[in-house]
Amino acid sequence: MPKLSEEEKTARREHVLAGARRCFARHGYDGATVVRLEQEIGLSRGAIFNWFPTKEDLFIELAARDRERLSRVWIEKGVEETIRTLLEEDPDWLGVYLGVAHRLRTDEEFRRRWHDTPAQKKLQRQLVARMREQQAAGELRDDQDPEQIGSFLGVILDGLAMQRAAGFKPPVDAVLALIRDALAPVKDRTRARRSASAAPPS
Amino acid sequence: MPKLSEEEKTARREHVLAGARRCFARHGYDGATVVRLEQEIGLSRGAIFNWFPTKEDLFIELAARDRERLSRVWIEKGVEETIRTLLEEDPDWLGVYLGVAHRLRTDEEFRRRWHDTPAQKKLQRQLVARMREQQAAGELRDDQDPEQIGSFLGVILDGLAMQRAAGFKPPVDAVLALIRDALAPVKDRTRARRSASAAPPS
Repeated sequence: MPKLSEEEKTARREHVLAGARRCFARHGYDGATVVRLEQEIGLSRGAIFNWFPTKEDLFIELAARDRERLSRVWIEKGVEETIRTLLEEDPDWLGVYLGVAHRLRTDEEFRRRWHDTPAQKKLQRQLVARMREQQAAGELRDDQDPEQIGSFLGVILDGLAMQRAAGFKPPVDAVLALIRDALAPVKDRTRARRSASAAPPS
Repeated sequence: MPKLSEEEKTARREHVLAGARRCFARHGYDGATVVRLEQEIGLSRGAIFNWFPTKEDLFIELAARDRERLSRVWIEKGVEETIRTLLEEDPDWLGVYLGVAHRLRTDEEFRRRWHDTPAQKKLQRQLVARMREQQAAGELRDDQDPEQIGSFLGVILDGLAMQRAAGFKPPVDAVLALIRDALAPVKDRTRARRSASAAPPS
């Protein structure tokens, strides 16, 4: 194999990941056979598994990137934008997650690898720090731990992913409105309700 | 075939459904082959499909019953008990739902049959009526339609089902606390916060 520059290596790796993502989305996790991965990526299995030793490695990397991207949107732009970002995702790709749920529950090693990527742990800490700032600034309720608030939003994001994968149209505006009240400090919720009551009847 | 009494017919039908549920939970929707259904139910395919013409009919009936049961708990005992009921469900069975999501999105006839069971529509109307009563009594926020509130909780339930199927431990207490504030009329949320602030520091 000719020696590749760092830039070429990165490009090759990204090419492999992008093709694997399309392949998983089209055929599901179990249906993404080595032959189909070769076809979609346009490289031989030897070349592909040079970058990622197994299909599982490919998927773990793609899933970690998804979570990193969502965490970054959350830190930089807030909860609502995070939800909108998720809803723009390809339903076929979201469906791949549903296909690995059983494995996540029953295969301890897979679950450990899923949870423990260092980049994700770092972002998790940043996210908690950001929420603490928002709590101190009175922008986020402070009677629940950031970890708990994060878990609550994880449930919402998983529910939205499931509904998208199943072709339902999630009630985005209602979800956003109710989450806003679930997370806001009380003074803001009260103000919102008062101005609603003060509006003339339509 | 000997003539069965109505009671015997009901018992036979329930027997078929209970076996099919175990079979789906063990093997997933796609993995529940006719041979496996025969084994788990303990009847021949002829006898099984006498009650439910196809595997799809079996699943649609089981899913409709799940939703009816949750709707009934919701109407009679409220949101929190509904969430607890879902969380007691066998994760293997919840995983079956993940396995049909793609089909729900891409198979129009399947989706239509999923949505349109008459019993479910009737419960849906009862649920909306119950929420309107709670709104009138000041127990539920009244600035969102019951349909929107129902959809929001549907997202939460789907998220919890997904996390259970994937073996995560959803943060039940946080979810319940935040949902409570998302749904309560403002006066109650304010009161809860005030008493929290008035408590001596621990």
